[in-house]
Amino acid sequence: MSKDYLDSKEYNETLSKMREDIENDIYPPNERLHPLYELATNYRVSRTTMEAVIEQLVDENMVTRRLGNGIFVNPKPIYSSGIEELGSVSDMIRRAGKRPGTQFVAAEVVRPSASDLAHFNSLDVQALARVERVRTADGEPVVYCIDKVDHDLVPIGLIHSQDSIFKLIENHTGKRIHYAETFIEPIGFHERISAILHCRPDQALLLLRQMHYTKDHEPILYSANYFKSDAFQFHVVRKRID
Amino acid sequence: MSKDYLDSKEYNETLSKMREDIENDIYPPNERLHPLYELATNYRVSRTTMEAVIEQLVDENMVTRRLGNGIFVNPKPIYSSGIEELGSVSDMIRRAGKRPGTQFVAAEVVRPSASDLAHFNSLDVQALARVERVRTADGEPVVYCIDKVDHDLVPIGLIHSQDSIFKLIENHTGKRIHYAETFIEPIGFHERISAILHCRPDQALLLLRQMHYTKDHEPILYSANYFKSDAFQFHVVRKRID
Repeated sequence: MSKDYLDSKEYNETLSKMREDIENDIYPPNERLHPLYELATNYRVSRTTMEAVIEQLVDENMVTRRLGNGIFVNPKPIYSSGIEELGSVSDMIRRAGKRPGTQFVAAEVVRPSASDLAHFNSLDVQALARVERVRTADGEPVVYCIDKVDHDLVPIGLIHSQDSIFKLIENHTGKRIHYAETFIEPIGFHERISAILHCRPDQALLLLRQMHYTKDHEPILYSANYFKSDAFQFHVVRKRID
Repeated sequence: MSKDYLDSKEYNETLSKMREDIENDIYPPNERLHPLYELATNYRVSRTTMEAVIEQLVDENMVTRRLGNGIFVNPKPIYSSGIEELGSVSDMIRRAGKRPGTQFVAAEVVRPSASDLAHFNSLDVQALARVERVRTADGEPVVYCIDKVDHDLVPIGLIHSQDSIFKLIENHTGKRIHYAETFIEPIGFHERISAILHCRPDQALLLLRQMHYTKDHEPILYSANYFKSDAFQFHVVRKRID
């Protein structure tokens, strides 16, 4: 949409004010905004200006337009992290000033599949401890985690004793996770996990599938982490290669 | 699902064979697989084994189960790239052995919004050349690109002359893009763009919003790139920070 016919001073002032009001929870997360004509009246601007401001806020992902339903305020991400930085999920939540929690969904010992053996780069793994958990921030579900670790290394009975699998592996085995090789994948809707994380129908997940290694390149933990897109935001600096 | 009751030799062999058959296009992309009992008969294994194999292939993202519709083979990504490596979209497609192409959707000169001015870190930008394009690989739409560049630097009339905006900026201004600050965001479904990229209803997009800079940290190009998730795969090495 061309904004050439707009009063750019009015537009910029209204946009700043509206951004501020959203950031200060004048319009709280997940609430529906007033209809356009009311907003225009409240901010004392034309509907054209208000429309352009909303357009821009949609662009910036601060609000979402839902067909036939109005415009809703998006929740603010609790944590924005450089994707090349590996921390435990607990630490990410703690660094956002929230209290990390865990709900166990399933814990079982499974035979490694062919792809598990490939991930662990070993034919010696006899059994994997496989855990599914919901991680919460101040009680709200924000990440769904599936973790697999060699059952000889970490017996499954231990896993309930500690929120952080990173710490558990470290304390129990003396091995420290140093880096992860990660695939980044968008998931529109997951039959089971989207409901567990209380996702709205239009709310996507970011899936990080990652194999964790020690400093000596020993594969030690496989994770599939489904991050609720409004709770976690990832960024990266990309450097020119050609 | 526990696989303890499975014959693990049979399971592993069938999984390997099935993976191979998908990779060799015995089951071509987007095709529906035969029903489970037929697959089990063809591979001469039990239905239990076949079910576990399919479960694993769903996990590996090689096939997708669509409710009431059967199991479909996912297209293979044309290009897997380290997300910290910045190349032009044309180069990414070329490196995958495909012919890059461009369909112009819109090109216009717009006033910079407040957030544009923030991105370009300047109050001096008077007008932006804003271009929307579909990038194709061997004729198939794979990325939707929205680019904004200072109109004083690159007049909009020039943009039709060159597929690569990176090259255009370089040739016309002598300035070279050196890095980008990028936000990574999953998009479940985009009203307009999902249709243009011929996405299936369950097919997500990976949105990279990026500000590109010269070596001297001069902001020069803003892009929003919507990557079709089955065409591009991104990975990253994450290093432990704590």
